[in-house]
Amino acid sequence: MSVPFTTKTVSLSKGPDPKTSIQTERNAQKIDPQAMHYFLEGSKERAELLKSLTQQMERDPILFTDGSYYDLTKEQQRELTVLKINRVSRYLENETIDVFNKRLSLIGVIDPQVGTRMGVNLGLFLSCIRGNGTNEQLKYWALDKHTAQLRGIYGCFGMTELGHGSNVAGIETTATFDKENDEFIINTPHIGATKWWIGGAAHSSTHCSVYARLIVDGKDYGVKTFVVPLRDANHDLMPGVSVGDIGAKMGREGIDNGWIQFSSVRIPRFFMLQKFCKVSRDGEVVLPPLEQLSYSALLGGRVMMVLDSYRMLARMSTIALRYAIGRRQFKGDNVDPNDENALETQLLDYPLHQKRLFPYLAAAYVISAGALKVERTIEDTLVELDNAVEKGDNASIMKSIEAMKSLFVDSGSLKATSTWLAAQGIDECRQSCGGHGYSGYNGFGRAYNDWVVQCTWEGDNNVLGMTTGKPFVKHVMSLEDTGKPVKGSSDFLNQLKEYTGSGASKVILNDANDILDLKKFIKSLEVAIIRLSSETAKIVRKENFDFVGAELVNISKLNAHRYVLTEYVRRVDAHDNASLKPYLYDLGRVYAATVVLDKFSGVYLTFNVASTNAITDLIKIVIPKLCKQIRPNVVGLTDSFQMSDMMINAAIGKYDGDIYENYFDLVKTLNPPRNHKAPYSAALEAMLNRPSREERERFEKSAETAEILSK
Amino acid sequence: MSVPFTTKTVSLSKGPDPKTSIQTERNAQKIDPQAMHYFLEGSKERAELLKSLTQQMERDPILFTDGSYYDLTKEQQRELTVLKINRVSRYLENETIDVFNKRLSLIGVIDPQVGTRMGVNLGLFLSCIRGNGTNEQLKYWALDKHTAQLRGIYGCFGMTELGHGSNVAGIETTATFDKENDEFIINTPHIGATKWWIGGAAHSSTHCSVYARLIVDGKDYGVKTFVVPLRDANHDLMPGVSVGDIGAKMGREGIDNGWIQFSSVRIPRFFMLQKFCKVSRDGEVVLPPLEQLSYSALLGGRVMMVLDSYRMLARMSTIALRYAIGRRQFKGDNVDPNDENALETQLLDYPLHQKRLFPYLAAAYVISAGALKVERTIEDTLVELDNAVEKGDNASIMKSIEAMKSLFVDSGSLKATSTWLAAQGIDECRQSCGGHGYSGYNGFGRAYNDWVVQCTWEGDNNVLGMTTGKPFVKHVMSLEDTGKPVKGSSDFLNQLKEYTGSGASKVILNDANDILDLKKFIKSLEVAIIRLSSETAKIVRKENFDFVGAELVNISKLNAHRYVLTEYVRRVDAHDNASLKPYLYDLGRVYAATVVLDKFSGVYLTFNVASTNAITDLIKIVIPKLCKQIRPNVVGLTDSFQMSDMMINAAIGKYDGDIYENYFDLVKTLNPPRNHKAPYSAALEAMLNRPSREERERFEKSAETAEILSK
Repeated sequence: MSVPFTTKTVSLSKGPDPKTSIQTERNAQKIDPQAMHYFLEGSKERAELLKSLTQQMERDPILFTDGSYYDLTKEQQRELTVLKINRVSRYLENETIDVFNKRLSLIGVIDPQVGTRMGVNLGLFLSCIRGNGTNEQLKYWALDKHTAQLRGIYGCFGMTELGHGSNVAGIETTATFDKENDEFIINTPHIGATKWWIGGAAHSSTHCSVYARLIVDGKDYGVKTFVVPLRDANHDLMPGVSVGDIGAKMGREGIDNGWIQFSSVRIPRFFMLQKFCKVSRDGEVVLPPLEQLSYSALLGGRVMMVLDSYRMLARMSTIALRYAIGRRQFKGDNVDPNDENALETQLLDYPLHQKRLFPYLAAAYVISAGALKVERTIEDTLVELDNAVEKGDNASIMKSIEAMKSLFVDSGSLKATSTWLAAQGIDECRQSCGGHGYSGYNGFGRAYNDWVVQCTWEGDNNVLGMTTGKPFVKHVMSLEDTGKPVKGSSDFLNQLKEYTGSGASKVILNDANDILDLKKFIKSLEVAIIRLSSETAKIVRKENFDFVGAELVNISKLNAHRYVLTEYVRRVDAHDNASLKPYLYDLGRVYAATVVLDKFSGVYLTFNVASTNAITDLIKIVIPKLCKQIRPNVVGLTDSFQMSDMMINAAIGKYDGDIYENYFDLVKTLNPPRNHKAPYSAALEAMLNRPSREERERFEKSAETAEILSK
Repeated sequence: MSVPFTTKTVSLSKGPDPKTSIQTERNAQKIDPQAMHYFLEGSKERAELLKSLTQQMERDPILFTDGSYYDLTKEQQRELTVLKINRVSRYLENETIDVFNKRLSLIGVIDPQVGTRMGVNLGLFLSCIRGNGTNEQLKYWALDKHTAQLRGIYGCFGMTELGHGSNVAGIETTATFDKENDEFIINTPHIGATKWWIGGAAHSSTHCSVYARLIVDGKDYGVKTFVVPLRDANHDLMPGVSVGDIGAKMGREGIDNGWIQFSSVRIPRFFMLQKFCKVSRDGEVVLPPLEQLSYSALLGGRVMMVLDSYRMLARMSTIALRYAIGRRQFKGDNVDPNDENALETQLLDYPLHQKRLFPYLAAAYVISAGALKVERTIEDTLVELDNAVEKGDNASIMKSIEAMKSLFVDSGSLKATSTWLAAQGIDECRQSCGGHGYSGYNGFGRAYNDWVVQCTWEGDNNVLGMTTGKPFVKHVMSLEDTGKPVKGSSDFLNQLKEYTGSGASKVILNDANDILDLKKFIKSLEVAIIRLSSETAKIVRKENFDFVGAELVNISKLNAHRYVLTEYVRRVDAHDNASLKPYLYDLGRVYAATVVLDKFSGVYLTFNVASTNAITDLIKIVIPKLCKQIRPNVVGLTDSFQMSDMMINAAIGKYDGDIYENYFDLVKTLNPPRNHKAPYSAALEAMLNRPSREERERFEKSAETAEILSK
């Protein structure tokens, strides 16, 4: 018998060799991961820019992140986050906002709390000024006062209150116009109106963009926006301003979320943001053309979250799939049971394991396309709106507002569906790594805890689901009532008559071939939305919209899937590298089959969008076939995300696939085995070596004592 | 206008008043929460015992838990956990194991890591000795050496290795018999065989029950169990024993999970646990009648996890439902839009909110019944086995082993399904509280992080799902091949012929009434299992069992639902308090409709178990109707869990329902607003007040400099 030695330890017998597994598979890949990466990031230029930004941060002594990140306490995280923001500010001063936003998107993977803690300032606070203030107001606070360079002023975004989150129109903080002094008095009338969850408020912010009810001459004009200084240049609190730390959170502990109460705080009249809405010196009020314009600050964040979903799904599935290639467990039914020397089966060769993970791999690909599209759309829409306002051209303003409404629907449904999907993905990927998924050093726990806030913040997913599902039902009702065709991205609803009523039994997916036909699948999504919306409309006519919340959320989800799949297929069709297309189409099919059809089979069957035969085919033919096709390319498809080991930051998910050595090394480095006694070991030893109960009870309950006492 | 003042702060206007909402509803309850609680806990005696145990712990200065729990660092948690275990040991010395187990189940709610850190010793280590050792071995280590009193010895459970979790038979640690010295040599041959995740190993344990391959005269007899001392009475490591801390985890940071490597560690031959398996002085090996017997140590844990699932679902749904009663959001479609004084709508009056939360409320009730049943079954089975072994009666031993096999299937499928359900429940309850669900002080984050390890430990849920789904397919195949009827709890499979082949189109659920008929619903579950198993059998005959992993997991889930619903309905039928029954049946129906049918509508439709009409009825009639019936009783149904504010440990979930005051008070107490500057504030201020980039660059890039340098 040969006695193999590893380089690391005296080893008398051969241990597992996961890195050979992944390397062998990598050598056999046919996909060019570079070319595929360009597809994923939209272009060669964009991809190369992202890589050079990553390299800068990997080498940066402060921005660099490694496994020790997972050991930091809340206090340490808070401090490190500030040091990182300080460091990032030096990059920011040297680059365009466009480049910086890409950097921010990468930081969202490497250390999301840094991104968010900066984002409340650069994203929300400044977006609020940009969206609601005049050009002069924006220039003053963003540039003249250097907020945009993370200098001078640090803003936070004062929308949510303890008693009001999703219902922004119900906010109760007041901004009362004091005509005599030409000031607004900002006030928190009661505990429920305490600003809550305000990122940056507890320790960082000097200013806050406050959402408050405008009160002039006793009349309530609804919620408007105001810039309110919280701290002076010495970083001391302004009079009348109370802030506090809201303390422990499920994740993102590095962000100093806080609460704010205003007790009759006075600000000059011109601190009100007055692009659309204005109060004159003598209290005359001009109102905005559309109430929602004041929430446009949230749009950028929603778009960013779709992009974040893509990166998170990419990161998580890379970790889980690399582990599944290196890890072996049981000898599967394909292994000859008489072959004692046969290795155990790679986790990824089990069909169930493929079925669990491939949907999230595919989702990363498909959602990347949707993310790029909404990113482009928001840029165009905001620029158009700015231009229209600049020119004072009312028709253009109204057109931009229409585009903005569409963007609210698209970005809202995408935000909800993709953040939910990413949350499920993190969890499934974690579970697929068994116990090792629960280790802090493999990244899943932290990723989940940091991530899931995205499902409730900046538009709770269920509320977003309902508000973005509702327009479809309304369109259908209006079609039924007036026959006037629907315009814009929902115009597929005009097929209503064809697929409802006498057309309600027309099946779109009849068998495996139909499911695998992506164009047909997109059609099936349209029909599913049409029929579900039409059925929901019937209920609404009898009851009301509150009654159909669950249906609205489902419509919104189906629409998000329709949106991303349509855009994905369009991009693949148009892509110039033909060698990648077969892989890309297959990933689209995996998404369609697993993320959509398998989850919505009840809806598809109920509304005759798919036949029973198609669903049987889905399980018996389509999914097994697609999994078999994807399996050999997994290393290539994950390498194509081009995530460096720093971005992965998971011991079992590194590029070299040496899962056990990497993991054990990290554990020993961060927890030196020399410390085999705990600091509190004395307490443990005292417990174990304590005298018997009888002795500690001074033998007062003994038979002897009983005899004495009972005499 | 009247100016109401609250007792707490100067308040110029009326804030939200959530406690009146809950109190008003509480006053209108018709359910006797005490009587309902007796039902949930199985009997008045058991319920009262649990309450007195809770009271002891609520008043105990060390065991008491409050909101500050959520602020502890890992190091603080580790130490506090030991202090709590030390304190618990004094109760343990004074009570029976039966009472103590109930205490442990409560501790599992109050501070689960305390329960687990003790459980590895009292549960796993001692269960391993009980299951595998002789009576003398058990008496020696458990009683004579005081392990059972948390004194002298502290054991850990050395099963899992870095490279082997679920496949216990593949474990690679060796126990080689050294005939000359009458000793076993315990050895870790390579990194993959490092014992990993071992709770208690890093700092606490003095002994380990090691699963290792028995090697005698070069022959490998498979995995057996050995007691190996790790630390001496001074708590110093034994020679040849290396241990380390595995460090950061997603949750349960108070447990000192560790790794262990053995380098030729010698133990006396009689440290091998030898109830079923024995090595004689001269190396003769006697093997056990059933390999799985050595894993019986895991059974107790699995049963406990079903009970934990009930308590976790009870706790989480109580928090979320109390919040949903107190919280108001938007004015719903039922509110007159012209009534300016109308309050916003209670969250819980939205149908979607009901549909999201009632399933988990119902699941708590239904799973409680299943938990009590498996708890009883395991006690009976283990006692019978012990008696049989005691008597040396082989027929009885074999009978007990059969019972044990059934218990493996039942407890395994229940463990998987109920821990998954609880994980989803925690997440859905958290999301239903919006942003406040993400606060550390409302309990969800910690609950989730501590909980989800249950989905992968002591039998990964997917692996358990497959192994407990497999017997159904095997039974069906054997029925098809031999016609020999199935015995035991799966005997409903004998209806195979009636519901497959020519009976395959027989629909069980045709409409709303069928769904609401619990007996019929249970029948539908039987038929769904039969048809899915029969379909799966066809695939297995063509491919193999690996190929149908997803189907096996589904069969296992359906069987778990069948098991708990059957037991639940049986218990409700037999219950003597008639006034509770209507509520209990409705909860059973909610479970059937939402937890089962809504999730499995694809399977039900595909296999004709339900008609399309039934699924339409489910959405349009059944779920809305049930939600409407449950809604008025929510306060009573949650109060019936009788969880004290300490057990709830969530600011927004307290009994008085004063969500905002309770939450704000706690936040301010734990994060005094006086500390409005962070310890690292200087770094922040230095960033904000830094000179301009040009100045910091020494004006080297200025136009003036350029002019000088370019000359």
